[in-house]
Amino acid sequence: MVKANTNYQLLKPSYLFSDIAKRINQFIKDNPNRSVIKMGIGDVTSPLIPEVICAMHLAVDEMSKKETFRGYGPEQGYDFLKEALRGYYKNFGVSIDLDEIFVSDGAKSDIANITDLFSNDNTIIVPDPVYPVYVDTNLMLNRKIIYVDGNISNGFLPLPYDGLKGDIIYLCSPNNPTGAVYSKEQLKLWVDYALNNKAVILFDAAYECFIREDYPHSIFEIEGAKDCAIEFCSFSKTAGFTGTRCGYTVVPKNLIIDGQSLNKMWLRRQTTKFNGVSYIVQRGAAAVFTKEGQISVKKVIDGYLDNAKILGEAMRAQNIWYTGGVNSPYIWFKCPEDMDSWDFFDAMLNKIGVTGTPGSGFGKQGEGYFRLTAFNTKENTILAAQKFSQVKNWR
Amino acid sequence: MVKANTNYQLLKPSYLFSDIAKRINQFIKDNPNRSVIKMGIGDVTSPLIPEVICAMHLAVDEMSKKETFRGYGPEQGYDFLKEALRGYYKNFGVSIDLDEIFVSDGAKSDIANITDLFSNDNTIIVPDPVYPVYVDTNLMLNRKIIYVDGNISNGFLPLPYDGLKGDIIYLCSPNNPTGAVYSKEQLKLWVDYALNNKAVILFDAAYECFIREDYPHSIFEIEGAKDCAIEFCSFSKTAGFTGTRCGYTVVPKNLIIDGQSLNKMWLRRQTTKFNGVSYIVQRGAAAVFTKEGQISVKKVIDGYLDNAKILGEAMRAQNIWYTGGVNSPYIWFKCPEDMDSWDFFDAMLNKIGVTGTPGSGFGKQGEGYFRLTAFNTKENTILAAQKFSQVKNWR
Repeated sequence: MVKANTNYQLLKPSYLFSDIAKRINQFIKDNPNRSVIKMGIGDVTSPLIPEVICAMHLAVDEMSKKETFRGYGPEQGYDFLKEALRGYYKNFGVSIDLDEIFVSDGAKSDIANITDLFSNDNTIIVPDPVYPVYVDTNLMLNRKIIYVDGNISNGFLPLPYDGLKGDIIYLCSPNNPTGAVYSKEQLKLWVDYALNNKAVILFDAAYECFIREDYPHSIFEIEGAKDCAIEFCSFSKTAGFTGTRCGYTVVPKNLIIDGQSLNKMWLRRQTTKFNGVSYIVQRGAAAVFTKEGQISVKKVIDGYLDNAKILGEAMRAQNIWYTGGVNSPYIWFKCPEDMDSWDFFDAMLNKIGVTGTPGSGFGKQGEGYFRLTAFNTKENTILAAQKFSQVKNWR
Repeated sequence: MVKANTNYQLLKPSYLFSDIAKRINQFIKDNPNRSVIKMGIGDVTSPLIPEVICAMHLAVDEMSKKETFRGYGPEQGYDFLKEALRGYYKNFGVSIDLDEIFVSDGAKSDIANITDLFSNDNTIIVPDPVYPVYVDTNLMLNRKIIYVDGNISNGFLPLPYDGLKGDIIYLCSPNNPTGAVYSKEQLKLWVDYALNNKAVILFDAAYECFIREDYPHSIFEIEGAKDCAIEFCSFSKTAGFTGTRCGYTVVPKNLIIDGQSLNKMWLRRQTTKFNGVSYIVQRGAAAVFTKEGQISVKKVIDGYLDNAKILGEAMRAQNIWYTGGVNSPYIWFKCPEDMDSWDFFDAMLNKIGVTGTPGSGFGKQGEGYFRLTAFNTKENTILAAQKFSQVKNWR
């Protein structure tokens, strides 16, 4: 008799976004004349840049002619894209080889699938609050999970502490959901921890392109990281590819665990269980790294960062503690008047018709906090910030 | 200390295609004036049909404008594509619900990732010869594998036998590498076996579009299959999407194992570990199912089937036993004069400058057999068949 993976029963159903939708729908029903501004959007809203559009049209045309048609490509991505990525990393002073880069359909897939490479007999270190994929993909394998707590005193940037014992560490910087960014010195503490404990860091750099100040874009800017870290990144937020789908993972050849090369294992995993990313999409992704492409994506991200700044100013005007808002599209703030996350959700919706995401949806340490995003239009963001600033009493 | 998945050490490195390339390169070096016709190509060569090209251009344009831009789509695929697929299944008299269809980046990914849903304490039944992905993805989990042998007496269509005990059964029809196709009656034997033994069939239908005679396109044409089978299919061979990437998997809601719904588990797996297929690619895939799209893809596949027929005739002319060649782009034949697979490879290359794939690369039962494919041009296929027919003595 066939036996199911019973670990799926360990997963809690996620009602976060459906609960949010339910409350919004009820509000609209009860208040048909009031409008709602959604500041919980975790998805980009600006269209693809012209350089990407142009490159994809050309690639589609190539697929229409026998002479230029492309069948199976390399599972790990075309060299033209890997070379562009290698060039991009040079901006941060990071030198990587082409065979350390693996192009995929998105960072989420890779972050999830990388679990394949490890024994289930590992202890996982995960920050709280956290992107739920880190937790759920390990629960599916019934691995032991330890949470390191984010809070106001560490600025939601938890660091290793004496007695912490784990084997695989998930880090995300700039962070989703908090927008907090690790400094070089802080990341060095994690790298040293990993080296000393023979642990591996899985570094999620999906929001690196929002960094405009002096913070590391890549874990590989930290000395020793190539001996202990894998990095995941994506075109989703960089270039609006959430619906176009492309990401990449860097697995250094130096990274040897248990006498095995994780680079070779990941190559084997991807060649066996994956068949590469659409040629058309890879051509679009490569266009992001042209000179014109870089100017265009910067303009789009500047727009989101302007929105984030507006939201941050609204927080400061009310003396609300927050993090993010610079170097990130997210604003993470302490709910005013010590409200809990869902109470504040209801208060904001009812008082000013603005919604966001309750922090408690991202973990225990998120209770009492709230996330707003910069992905709405500038007009809506300004309007939401104005309304927010006018509230004297949230209860 | 982090521990690797040691099962990767169970995997044998695959040198099949690199060994083939090496021998061809040596031949070219030794015989600079002779040309080589490659009949081992497992990839399509015809460009995408105009309907797909047009749909993808339109979708790219949609991504360029704020009003029509698409961000994250549903992980399981857009309804417009799932509705087209549901309509396609009606051609075979199979009725499926939209939430039983999961669109993905390709059948290979799904066939590999479906292993997530099952306990490692299952016995896997795999035909021999076989598509290596079925074996390798289970070796990565150290699952017990039983082989059911294909041979001339069963036409390379192994069936369940008394005493066979397994929990998860991989079937591929039309088969890669043999081109053999199961009849309805034969598939019924497997479905009955699965129902009686509470086993699950993983049915790979990637080549169903090559079927022109009265064989089942879908396992769900067989009574009872919705209680015991998952089906994988792909646009790769149907519509030349090997480099464009799109596939789909059907997981019936009836399929309950261990008290758990595999449909719900797969939904959870895909929403947690995957983020959907490019909107542009999904629009292209949907165009395959328009009236015009169906006419165009039929024309392309007819071309490949013509090639397959030409190769089959060359076998018959030499009184060589073979299977496939109809309802399949593959010809699987017994090497003449009882040669082994690699000896025949060398003989064919040296005598007539034609290459293919040694059957021994697909499993023990493939030794002494050889695969040719129909994916070369008509001109090259005719030339290769003519040269083949002229050989009097292969040794």
